[in-house]
Amino acid sequence: MPRYFLTVEYDGRPFVGWQRQDNGLSVQEVLEVAAFRLCGQQVRVHGSGRTDAGVHALGQGAHLDLPRAYGARTVMKALNAHLRPHPVAVVASREVDDTFHARFSAIERAYLYRILTRLAPPTLDRGRVWWLPRDLDARAMDDAARVLIGRHDFSSFRASECQADSPVKTLGDLRVARVGEEIHVTTRARSFLHHQVRNMVGTLVLVGEGRWTADDVASALAARSRAAAGPTAPADGLYFDRVRYEEDNG
Amino acid sequence: MPRYFLTVEYDGRPFVGWQRQDNGLSVQEVLEVAAFRLCGQQVRVHGSGRTDAGVHALGQGAHLDLPRAYGARTVMKALNAHLRPHPVAVVASREVDDTFHARFSAIERAYLYRILTRLAPPTLDRGRVWWLPRDLDARAMDDAARVLIGRHDFSSFRASECQADSPVKTLGDLRVARVGEEIHVTTRARSFLHHQVRNMVGTLVLVGEGRWTADDVASALAARSRAAAGPTAPADGLYFDRVRYEEDNG
Repeated sequence: MPRYFLTVEYDGRPFVGWQRQDNGLSVQEVLEVAAFRLCGQQVRVHGSGRTDAGVHALGQGAHLDLPRAYGARTVMKALNAHLRPHPVAVVASREVDDTFHARFSAIERAYLYRILTRLAPPTLDRGRVWWLPRDLDARAMDDAARVLIGRHDFSSFRASECQADSPVKTLGDLRVARVGEEIHVTTRARSFLHHQVRNMVGTLVLVGEGRWTADDVASALAARSRAAAGPTAPADGLYFDRVRYEEDNG
Repeated sequence: MPRYFLTVEYDGRPFVGWQRQDNGLSVQEVLEVAAFRLCGQQVRVHGSGRTDAGVHALGQGAHLDLPRAYGARTVMKALNAHLRPHPVAVVASREVDDTFHARFSAIERAYLYRILTRLAPPTLDRGRVWWLPRDLDARAMDDAARVLIGRHDFSSFRASECQADSPVKTLGDLRVARVGEEIHVTTRARSFLHHQVRNMVGTLVLVGEGRWTADDVASALAARSRAAAGPTAPADGLYFDRVRYEEDNG
């Protein structure tokens, strides 16, 4: 059975998250329904990473096996036709061999977090940014972010529901930059703990507000206790930006 | 009575347009209701320009007179509080003298038109771009756009419902540029005819598709007949970007 890799973009607002759940519509389910309409068979869609309710994606990865070969461009066009009216779209597709797995073959995930820092609430970007009606010191946040880069026990930034075997992760990068009226936090790692990005953002905002220093972030990390770090930033501002595979280097 | 100038941002999707109408909710009405809640009196809000149903604004101008002085920042914050849950926000405000008029004092309006040119439909930007699932030649569009710059009879780009006294307008600028997956058309003039921007965009897209040349655009302009130019681009991609006043030069 031919296997296809899909790059998926979605607006997370109407969904309970990436993963199929009994309590509402998921991105995975609408993709699987679209695949069923395309090929007439129940097809499992495997994602590169789970996203929570309200979290968006610019480049979520996914793969699926279809009962016959359609051509990657046809798969993309047909899935997009069947995905309507949901705000989910396949923005790229390619055929991959059957040893490829969207989740297990991934060597790096990258996220973007958008914070709108202005007095006026968002209108066009409502639900797509975290609105903080005050200025944040992006430079101080970026300096403090460096404390978290590298291999650490991230228990202080881990949701209690997290199912990972170990709280030790290697954070490849974590940067904070001002982009117009927004602060953008970008980060990448092989994998993240549940809520790790949102908990890191919530903590860095304390630094941006001048309430915490980089040393406070280091202490929070060293405490290995969720209570030691800052609050969880809302889902609204979070975007699964892209996933990287071995062959992307080639 | 103190007069305030407001810079207003909105998502045009839920509205019948800027102007109060009997057939649905307008941006003007929600601003006037917010002003009533602030000061307890019926207040008229005057816009710098009308926008049609579904057209957005990044920087619509408006002014209103309030029965007493509040301070510009207080006006902005209070209006924003009262504007909820509508996707309309006052992003800047300042007190102006009573000779100032948001519409009549304006010396230039600028619009942005966004076209998404990719095979996959928009998700996060649905309703906020014109989606064309094919490539457009931005350079050819930009070359053809120059034909329209300057003082002309724009009858070919004028909606039949247009109430302007004359079809002669001076187009200050009209540019087309590729920005990632999008084509951005930017234009400015003292004032525009009804649907002029959308009709110019619809015509330039014919050029981008290779169906028309710059000479065809020149012929369409010279014909002074709506039937001679291209179709009206949809409201989705249009943004009232900003308005300029005499004092902005100072």
